[in-house]
Parts: sequence; C-alpha cells; structure tokens
Amino acid sequence: MDHRLARLRAALAERGLPALLVSAPANRRYLSGFSGSYGYLLVTADQALLFTDSRYTLRAAQEAPGVAIRQVVNPGRPFPALLAEAAAELGLARIAFEAAHTTVAEHRGLSQALGGGVELVPAEGLVEELREEKDATELATLRRAIAITDAAFTAVLERLTPETTEREAAWMLEVAMRVGGAEAVAFPIIVAAGPNGAQPHASAGDTPLGSGRPIVIDMGARVDGYHADLTRTIVLGEPDARFRELYAIVRDAQARTIAGLRPGLPAHEADALARDYIAAAGYGEHFGHGLGHGVGLNIHEGPSLRRSATGSSAPLRPGMVTSVEPGIYLEGWGGIRIEDLVLITEGGCEVLSQAPKLSL
Amino acid sequence: MDHRLARLRAALAERGLPALLVSAPANRRYLSGFSGSYGYLLVTADQALLFTDSRYTLRAAQEAPGVAIRQVVNPGRPFPALLAEAAAELGLARIAFEAAHTTVAEHRGLSQALGGGVELVPAEGLVEELREEKDATELATLRRAIAITDAAFTAVLERLTPETTEREAAWMLEVAMRVGGAEAVAFPIIVAAGPNGAQPHASAGDTPLGSGRPIVIDMGARVDGYHADLTRTIVLGEPDARFRELYAIVRDAQARTIAGLRPGLPAHEADALARDYIAAAGYGEHFGHGLGHGVGLNIHEGPSLRRSATGSSAPLRPGMVTSVEPGIYLEGWGGIRIEDLVLITEGGCEVLSQAPKLSL
Repeated sequence: MDHRLARLRAALAERGLPALLVSAPANRRYLSGFSGSYGYLLVTADQALLFTDSRYTLRAAQEAPGVAIRQVVNPGRPFPALLAEAAAELGLARIAFEAAHTTVAEHRGLSQALGGGVELVPAEGLVEELREEKDATELATLRRAIAITDAAFTAVLERLTPETTEREAAWMLEVAMRVGGAEAVAFPIIVAAGPNGAQPHASAGDTPLGSGRPIVIDMGARVDGYHADLTRTIVLGEPDARFRELYAIVRDAQARTIAGLRPGLPAHEADALARDYIAAAGYGEHFGHGLGHGVGLNIHEGPSLRRSATGSSAPLRPGMVTSVEPGIYLEGWGGIRIEDLVLITEGGCEVLSQAPKLSL
Repeated sequence: MDHRLARLRAALAERGLPALLVSAPANRRYLSGFSGSYGYLLVTADQALLFTDSRYTLRAAQEAPGVAIRQVVNPGRPFPALLAEAAAELGLARIAFEAAHTTVAEHRGLSQALGGGVELVPAEGLVEELREEKDATELATLRRAIAITDAAFTAVLERLTPETTEREAAWMLEVAMRVGGAEAVAFPIIVAAGPNGAQPHASAGDTPLGSGRPIVIDMGARVDGYHADLTRTIVLGEPDARFRELYAIVRDAQARTIAGLRPGLPAHEADALARDYIAAAGYGEHFGHGLGHGVGLNIHEGPSLRRSATGSSAPLRPGMVTSVEPGIYLEGWGGIRIEDLVLITEGGCEVLSQAPKLSL
C-alpha cells in the first residue's frame, strides 16, 4: 500500500493539491486495503486517515494496518464533522474530492461542515489512473481469478447438452466458480443461445442451448475483490457454414490484435487493429461495442479500448490488464464474441486466459 | 406503474415542482419497471420519458411499455443533451433532481447542457417515501422472496453439523435459495458461530459451527429485484444456561414488539418496545443497532426503526414492510438475533416470515 500511496502523493504534488478525499470504494480499498462497504480515506502528503463506523473498526484495523482510523458515530460524530476536525488538525486549506463519486447531497454536507476556511476542489480519475497499472500483488490475485474462471468453463463445457437451458448452464458455471474458490461472480453470467446472442448484453433465460447454433458465454470469477472476464462462443453439434465463417473472422481478428498490442500503442489504435480486420471482412457494422476494457477492483475500469471518437488516445503501458473481445452480431441469427484478458508487458503482451477455443 | 406515477405527481404538485429527474436505479425501476443498469427517468405532470442506451432499448420497451424511450448515444447524443432537448420540448423551466443519487460530476454536466434557462432544484427522498408503502404487486413478490428464504433455511438446518464451517453453511443456504427460485442472494449471507456472532456484521469464514454455542444466520433471497431478510440464531447440541436466558429475552422482546406494532406508532417508539424490554432485562448496552428497516427494491430502505436520537419519528403506515430484529451481543461469547419481516396492516401487523424458531 505504501507504494500506491506514494504514487498518489506524487500525482497530488504535481497538481498542487495538498490532500485528496477518497470516496469510491474501489479507490479506498486500493489505497488502504480496507474492503468494508462504508468508509472515506483522506490522503495528505504525510498522512492517511480512514473514517468508518463501528461495524467496521475491527476489520479496518486488520485490513488497513498502515492508516490511522477514526470512528464515525451518527449522530454524535458524523463524518463531515470528523473531516472538519482533521482538516483543522492538519492545517488543510484545500481538499480535493472525487467529483464522480461524491453526490450533491454529500458535497453539501461536507461544505457546510468545513465552512469557509477549507476549499473543496473537484478532481476526477486520479486514483483510477494509478489503478490501470497492476502491481505484483494485484497480478497474482487476477491470475487466481482467471484460473478459476478458465477451470470452471472447461469443466462445465463437457456437461452441456442441447437440452440444457441458458439459465441452467449459467448456474452450473456459477457453482463451478464458487466451489473452485471464487468469492462471487464478477458479474451476472451471460449464456445466450442462437438469436439471443445478437444482443451483446443478453442475460440467461429459459431458452435451450440447441444444436448447431452459436452460444455466447461471458463469465468471470471475483477473488479478493478482483474480477476476471472471459467470453467463449461454442456450438453443440455441427456448426453451419456461417458459424465457421464468422468464428474464423473473430478469432483471427483477436489473434492479430493480440499480436499487435504493445506499450505506447494508443488505446484507440488497439481497437482499430480488430475493427479494421472485421470491417475488411465485411462485418464492420456488426461490431457495435469497443474492443476491450481494463479489469481489476472494478469489472470495467481503465484503459478503455474503443474507437477514436469515444476512446482514449492514451498509450498502453506495461502492467495494464485489459480484455480483448471483438465480436460480430447478426440480428435473428446470433453472435460470436471471443474474449481473453491480456497483460501489457515491456515487449508486447501476455495472454492470461487459458480456456480452450474451438478448433474449426 | 400508473398508480405509482400518479402518487409521485401528487407529491411533486404539492411541492410546486414541475418535473423530477429520477437517477436512483431502484426509484427508476419502481416508477417505470425498467431494470437495466443504466437509465434516467424524467417525470412531469403528464409525461414519463426514459433515457437509456442501445444495450437496453429492447429490454426497456419490454419492461416499461408505459413510458416513452429516448436513446442515449455517446458521444453523439449524450444524456445531458437529450435532457436539454426534452426540457425545451416540454417547456420546463425547473427540474428537480435526486441530490442523494446524483454525483457532483453528473450535476455539472447537466447544468452545462441545460444552460441558464432551466433551474436544477435539489430534492431528496420523494420516491423513497412512496416506496415505503408496498402495493399488491410488490407484496406478492416479497412474499415469494420470503417463502424461498424460509424454505431454504428450513431445509439446510437439518443438514448442519458441528463440523460444518460457516462458509460451507452459507454456501448450502445460497444454493438452496438459488435452486428454490432466487435470482440472487439479497446480501452476502452471514453465518457467525460462537464469538464471531458478537459482531452484528460478521461474515462467513472457516470457523466450524461447533456445539452448544450460538450460531447467527442472516440471509435473504432476491426475487424480481425484491429483497427478503431473515435472521435465526440456532445451536447444535445442548445450549448452555446463558444461551437459554438470552434467547428467551430476545424472543420475548421481538414478540412484544410485534404485538405492539400498528399504524400511527412513531418509528422510534417501535424501537423502544424492544429496547426497553432488553434494557429492563439488563442487556441494554448489548443491543447496539436499530430495531429494523424497510425492505423492498433495496435491502435497506424506509422506514427506519431506530432509537429516537437517530431514527425517524414518522408514524408507521399500512403497507410498510419492515424487519423486526432485536439482538444481544456479548464480546467473546457471541450473539443472539432474531429477525422477521412484518407487514403493517390497518389493525396491527402480519408476520410474513415463517422459518422456525427454537423452542427452548
């Protein structure tokens, strides 16, 4: 945690900010280790104070030994009053706050408690940007989450039949991940058979998987707060010619993209590696979403690999872990999506996901 | 939904507000039926407009047939621009927004898009207050969630042994609820054996349940977005004298409280029914949390039954569904908590939970 706090302090110093009030749970956990549902972290150049309530003071002391803990008591010592006390003690005249994670009502309460002597300065993305590059501890946890996901997919794959419903398959996958060591699923599992797969965000319903048609499976395990994300498209029985054609395009688009990923590549150019290939094959209109997204303490975080109008032009950096998930979706027929997680390395990238793909 | 919108419109008219922008997912779902993860609902005296993106336009049309849908497209037609368009079309000069569910960054984006011609007025709790009284559809869903929870508890209870760990027991309960029809658990299941139960918000770890000591089990099923909440304290083998004493106090405190619940009773007086009884028995210091909370589309919602300094003095109303969950917690020994959900009726209340209690 010390290394993470040091990086944040450097970012604050660069912007001339004496302190940041961290409200977003994932940012707070990243910087302090504390995983409870309620808490605020105040980081200054030489202090880190965690505010939480009596439900969590014990857990906070265990999980976040490196920070000082102050106990919020409502209505006696509510958080805004404690923050004002801390600001006075530490001589803070300005505190940056996370504008994307602080409600208007919270902001009003803080402003009133702090009074005119302390300025609240909106800030965005400071901790999120640090979180894009994973450190060794994070990578080890992500690898565990990915291994559990891969093993569950591989084990359940053999047990699926055309009569299995989407919902049954999703439950089998969830059980396999939980029994395999996941604390939770990273997101509701998608199992979308045939035409249902034409919607990238379909859910799992009572449709049987059926034979000879595409089945999109999008799943992930969560381990110690970290999220895996894996998509495979499978077929039970014999695939038709269209399946073979589209599967090969998506698979090759993904492989070419992965071969091209490297530090320094702008995120929207990574997207273009897959998009241009799919467009050249004649299906550009049917790849409606972005190429990928970072994963970590959130299932969707930076970097965002999207086309240039909406995506970031920031270059990829070593240590980033991102999904690479091109897809083709045809209304009335279904979808093909293949998604792996990759780690950006000094020399290119390492594919972390190991679940099998179809060999057609 | 029409009835719900009508009640909101009456509340808006009473406050002289021409429109409310609904940001909180539970409030949006309550008023429109739309359950997707992204969307905003604008309610005026005679219109209801739902803004969502391409992932959800199909689902929104299915789930929310009664509202008009406008599709957000980033970066082409982002939500703030669409809201400004709608405000101009509908001639709105003021729009109330949910200050407790709108971030400072979102508010800034909306203000900029709306320009000087439309005033954003902070509002809090308007929809939450309506949601406190459940209608017939909601009650039917809650009864299903409660029945699934009760059945899972009852079935798993027989299979627990002193060697079963907390984590294993929690997983057995989760599987029983999911197989029984729950779409998800309402919250992470608590199974807290012996001293672990002294923390009201313990989680489930590797501790075996053991023999002759209290085991607190707090669990609930989620069905169509609605949350059940049930706590039972059990013992495997023979309870000791302290268990018998404390269990009887908590059970009797709960029974007396339930006998006293009725429309018109201020929420903090409901809390006092249990608290005074436990205090008279000598354990007032060991009942640290409030008596109960409403359940519905959120696991914690109004009414809030807490002691007078922190709780609401608003009277209970028919149609409210609230937990009644007194407890006693002794550091180093463990906890006793018993929780049922009850429906406030015209004549008093109806106990909805049917899971068995110990007969000591």
